[in-house]
Amino acid sequence: MTRNFPHGTPGTPCAHLDLDILRSNARKMAQRCSRLGIRLRPHVKTHKTHQGARLQTEGHFGGIAVSTLAEARFFARGGFEDITYAVPMAPSRLEEAADLGEELPRLHLLLDSETVLEAARGVGRRRGTRFSFFLKVDCGYGRAGVDAEDPRSLELVEALAAADEIDFRGLLTHAGHAYDCRSREEILQVGQQERRVVLRFAEELRQRGIEVPEVSLGSTPTLSVVPESPEEADSWSGITEARPGNYLFYDAFQTAIGSCTQRDIAFSVLATVIGSYPQRGELIVNAGGTALSRDPGPTHVNPHGGFGVLVDPVTAEVLPELSLVSLSQEHGRIRSSSHACLERYPVGSELRILPNHSCLAAACFDEYRVFEKGVEVDRWQPVRGW
Amino acid sequence: MTRNFPHGTPGTPCAHLDLDILRSNARKMAQRCSRLGIRLRPHVKTHKTHQGARLQTEGHFGGIAVSTLAEARFFARGGFEDITYAVPMAPSRLEEAADLGEELPRLHLLLDSETVLEAARGVGRRRGTRFSFFLKVDCGYGRAGVDAEDPRSLELVEALAAADEIDFRGLLTHAGHAYDCRSREEILQVGQQERRVVLRFAEELRQRGIEVPEVSLGSTPTLSVVPESPEEADSWSGITEARPGNYLFYDAFQTAIGSCTQRDIAFSVLATVIGSYPQRGELIVNAGGTALSRDPGPTHVNPHGGFGVLVDPVTAEVLPELSLVSLSQEHGRIRSSSHACLERYPVGSELRILPNHSCLAAACFDEYRVFEKGVEVDRWQPVRGW
Repeated sequence: MTRNFPHGTPGTPCAHLDLDILRSNARKMAQRCSRLGIRLRPHVKTHKTHQGARLQTEGHFGGIAVSTLAEARFFARGGFEDITYAVPMAPSRLEEAADLGEELPRLHLLLDSETVLEAARGVGRRRGTRFSFFLKVDCGYGRAGVDAEDPRSLELVEALAAADEIDFRGLLTHAGHAYDCRSREEILQVGQQERRVVLRFAEELRQRGIEVPEVSLGSTPTLSVVPESPEEADSWSGITEARPGNYLFYDAFQTAIGSCTQRDIAFSVLATVIGSYPQRGELIVNAGGTALSRDPGPTHVNPHGGFGVLVDPVTAEVLPELSLVSLSQEHGRIRSSSHACLERYPVGSELRILPNHSCLAAACFDEYRVFEKGVEVDRWQPVRGW
Repeated sequence: MTRNFPHGTPGTPCAHLDLDILRSNARKMAQRCSRLGIRLRPHVKTHKTHQGARLQTEGHFGGIAVSTLAEARFFARGGFEDITYAVPMAPSRLEEAADLGEELPRLHLLLDSETVLEAARGVGRRRGTRFSFFLKVDCGYGRAGVDAEDPRSLELVEALAAADEIDFRGLLTHAGHAYDCRSREEILQVGQQERRVVLRFAEELRQRGIEVPEVSLGSTPTLSVVPESPEEADSWSGITEARPGNYLFYDAFQTAIGSCTQRDIAFSVLATVIGSYPQRGELIVNAGGTALSRDPGPTHVNPHGGFGVLVDPVTAEVLPELSLVSLSQEHGRIRSSSHACLERYPVGSELRILPNHSCLAAACFDEYRVFEKGVEVDRWQPVRGW
């Protein structure tokens, strides 16, 4: 594949998107959710662009999930009308959420504590507004969310459902522990656990007369490995929506745990070789921690995997001889197991890097350069901050 | 210490600078360089702000070092007239450097290969300009730079010094391996090695009749532990300038290896507790990998050190009971060894985090909020990109 830059050769390091892969990733996830009979509410935190979110929501109801209030404001301005801010609310930012809620038809928030419930009721009373809240449930990840087995969780939902200032939207969970898996089989099990925990809790609430309009879940790993069987489709019954996000880009981490193949990775970083040291079998590229993030990646699967996968920028061939062994701020150090490979990339040549974690690597850039069949067709600007 | 926000309470996460500590760090480094009889050319890559660079250069000759061409352009616009772009030049960006060189009185570049030399000569000839170049020397770090013992390095300097299109500025090295140290004593040894390698090479070049105007070195660790002895001062003879950078902010990494104390850390991230889970002794704050970076820090010194040091935002007291054990995109998971400490920081309260690596954490923010004795006095905007 040749490359063609009608908008000018990019200075490196630069962020590179492959539009065909983006479209394919978006289409496959949308089809999978349709097949399962659940709504797709894509998380947009990986790319943070209007264009990426439009690809993800095409043909679907249009709802998205975001990871910051800055994203919520940015996507509201971009015409998105149904947004879930999928991080437990900080009480000090409820006023901002209330401001945004006045512009946006549907803004949903998360809580898992009485403190936030009481703070939201206070702001709601004072402003005469109603907040739409999900209860965040921990399905085994052990990060945020209530324990569905704890009787106090039930009390919290009862208070939430009874509060005049709150519209109780339902249950929301995230199987983040799917990232600790080592195979598709393990991911499938985590996905089953995610559904089991949240469906059982929804059932318990309904038995107590509490209406649970939504049961929302999802991570890219658990939504990427769904088998096409009637049994599988049955086991999703009762789940109303899924919120995967990373799948639009994928990354080296997702490949390592079994969510995708390297050909599914749409995001990469283009870098230039700025040093060659044949005597120690190493190259230096001008992409360091500020361009790739220092996410160590799936160290549980591949402890010596380095900071990304090296790819030839013209042929798109993966280069297993090269390993990105360390990153400092503006330097990436590559070790080569082959002298021929070292000679193939002299100072001044380019390499493409599939980062370990595309969410954090993408956040390093103010612009993505978008390519279609090797031709640059667009530039996308993500939102930043909180 | 109480806190006062005349510019409005910040939404968290936010970047917090202590102006008194910044001034103290700047003054101490400036005094140390004066005592050693070397010029201070502070690296500005940690903070990337005009204001920070003015603090660092106060009373000194005004030269700075930068890590990207975007920084070079930004600081040139801010009135800085003597700038070293301290990363080996990518041949494809020589034209940009030549453009900037036409505006800026003194722009110095780095190379360590004949490829870049030839590319620079080509651009220089075509444009009728002279580039100012340092030769980058590897003093044992093993990242970029020529091997001073390799006869081909001598040939490269000879070609560099003889090129009409090039002003050979001298030798430049960086003891990045000081970050692998475990104590002040080890850092002192790395500093001695750094000087020995570069001074010996400069001497060899001079014996061959090559003029070496500058011998530039420096890292924050090696410049932070200099003893005040006449022997030490003597051992710096022949070094013309030092380029430490991180010292303006310092961070948890520098504390762990012995460069500074926790009281010297000027940069921190303010976060809000958004989840409390006493049953498993944990808190969640709203600062994750996009606010702190995922730099694992000095794992060789403190393998279970977590992603930063927790501090009470009001009393500035360090909280050893709390450990920032993991980071996802927008969540930081804190484990507490004390139930009382957990109760002291309920949902909605704030915590201050001293990140492992302030260079990468600062790069997460578009603005730093600057405090003097607890009162917010300014906001600084860093440059970004390449």
